[in-house]
Amino acid sequence: MKVIRTIAGMRQEIKQYRIEHPAGVIGFVPTMGYLHGGHESLIHRARQEADLVVLSIFVNPLQFGPNEDFERYPRDEERDLRIAAEAGADLVFIPKVQEMYPREVLTTVQVRKITERLCGASRPGHFDGVCTVVSKLFHIVGPDRAYFGMKDAQQVAVIMQMVQDLNIPVEIVPCPTMREADGLALSSRNVYLNEEERRQAVVLYQALEAADEYIHTQQGGTCEELREMIRQKIQMAPLADIDYIEIVTFPGLEPLPDRVKIAGTLQQQPVLAALAVRFGSTRLIDNRLWTAKGGLV
Amino acid sequence: MKVIRTIAGMRQEIKQYRIEHPAGVIGFVPTMGYLHGGHESLIHRARQEADLVVLSIFVNPLQFGPNEDFERYPRDEERDLRIAAEAGADLVFIPKVQEMYPREVLTTVQVRKITERLCGASRPGHFDGVCTVVSKLFHIVGPDRAYFGMKDAQQVAVIMQMVQDLNIPVEIVPCPTMREADGLALSSRNVYLNEEERRQAVVLYQALEAADEYIHTQQGGTCEELREMIRQKIQMAPLADIDYIEIVTFPGLEPLPDRVKIAGTLQQQPVLAALAVRFGSTRLIDNRLWTAKGGLV
Repeated sequence: MKVIRTIAGMRQEIKQYRIEHPAGVIGFVPTMGYLHGGHESLIHRARQEADLVVLSIFVNPLQFGPNEDFERYPRDEERDLRIAAEAGADLVFIPKVQEMYPREVLTTVQVRKITERLCGASRPGHFDGVCTVVSKLFHIVGPDRAYFGMKDAQQVAVIMQMVQDLNIPVEIVPCPTMREADGLALSSRNVYLNEEERRQAVVLYQALEAADEYIHTQQGGTCEELREMIRQKIQMAPLADIDYIEIVTFPGLEPLPDRVKIAGTLQQQPVLAALAVRFGSTRLIDNRLWTAKGGLV
Repeated sequence: MKVIRTIAGMRQEIKQYRIEHPAGVIGFVPTMGYLHGGHESLIHRARQEADLVVLSIFVNPLQFGPNEDFERYPRDEERDLRIAAEAGADLVFIPKVQEMYPREVLTTVQVRKITERLCGASRPGHFDGVCTVVSKLFHIVGPDRAYFGMKDAQQVAVIMQMVQDLNIPVEIVPCPTMREADGLALSSRNVYLNEEERRQAVVLYQALEAADEYIHTQQGGTCEELREMIRQKIQMAPLADIDYIEIVTFPGLEPLPDRVKIAGTLQQQPVLAALAVRFGSTRLIDNRLWTAKGGLV
């Protein structure tokens, strides 16, 4: 596994690879590092489907708000490189902030509407930062496919929209959320949780499991009933401070009216239940996607 | 010369070309059609430097304001194809609006600061439209080099900024402005001018010629004196209605303070005199760039 720290170096590697393997498929896994089983599953998937697997590790300042956790976001390059090598990455791109943003950022990629709801509402500018850096990384790596975890379902939807609208020649591959034994979605931010918060955080998974059962048993259930059921489940954890619980279409992220019946909507398009809940100062997100045929998207 | 009307068709051509010519250089000339000698010179330049020359013809609605001339912008596909073939294009991409924008445009590429002055001030949103469509075209065609005329100097500066900031793997090649025998800069919009307007429009060139002489003879001249000299020259044409006359750096487009001496600034960075002047309902632009060494950029 090769570690590359400059844009020029990365371009050179890819250029050389393309000349030597004109029909080779490049799979790309962009991450902010502090790798966990979710990232590993993305690398494994890329390893299965691509000939060259590129991983990037970059904590992107542009997608953090001024009062967010950019400075304290967990970093451990040595451990990340060990995990990346074991999972099967061929190239790891680890640029410094100065390499990615050598001067004032004048150019941004912006996606309207689907960025304004859910996490976009409580994190203004977040998805501009995500789109801008992902677009830069796509231009540097030039992958055929890029792998993203569905834990960040809105991010997947936004990136799919950007790629489609700007005709970026990359296939976006959404991959299933990985979880701890008790159901908590894997996240680099889970390390922020203290023991009690960690114990209670499982309520997100439990609420989504209950929602799943509700949808499969209550054929007449409405969007509002589903949301309230999830809310009640989460409120059973005393430390849970709900940011949002939303029932929306996927990937359009259109809010569903309260009275609409989930079963009927599902016949037409996938439905996503998305949650953001704070435990102390840590904001966790999770979601569940339902489709008519049971697939991911 | 092959004419291609779909994005999928264009991608297929380029993919095939890249497989057959892994070291081939693709040169790209994006235009809005109604081709004139300026476009021809871009195609000739691409022909000299590239192995495959791709021309696009697309009147991009996204870069026209609601009260601008999108509907009446001149179009003549048959003539364009004849000129393109004679000038040496290999592929011509002519998508319909529906092909480029099949649904509501949610994603845009925005460049701040250098888009806010000059034409950006009187055409809000114009450069967002330019950046978005050029980024789409770059993703569809995947060129190694792209050729732009310096008549639209601000457009060149904005696209260079976008390409640099987003790491788009395309080399931007600015090319000299082409002119009529009397000096009027070639523009598809020149057909809007009536006989008298056309006669007077040459004042833009004459003012820039006078500015050139001023710079080469008045070593102590200031930015303000240069601008006022240009203004007086242009005001000698009774039909000329000045939108702006600005003396700025290039490619940063920073306005130079009134008192600054041109000669001193030129030692440090190129200086651009940029004009926009209306004749009747037709808005014409022109500019002159001065560099320490006399080159284009």
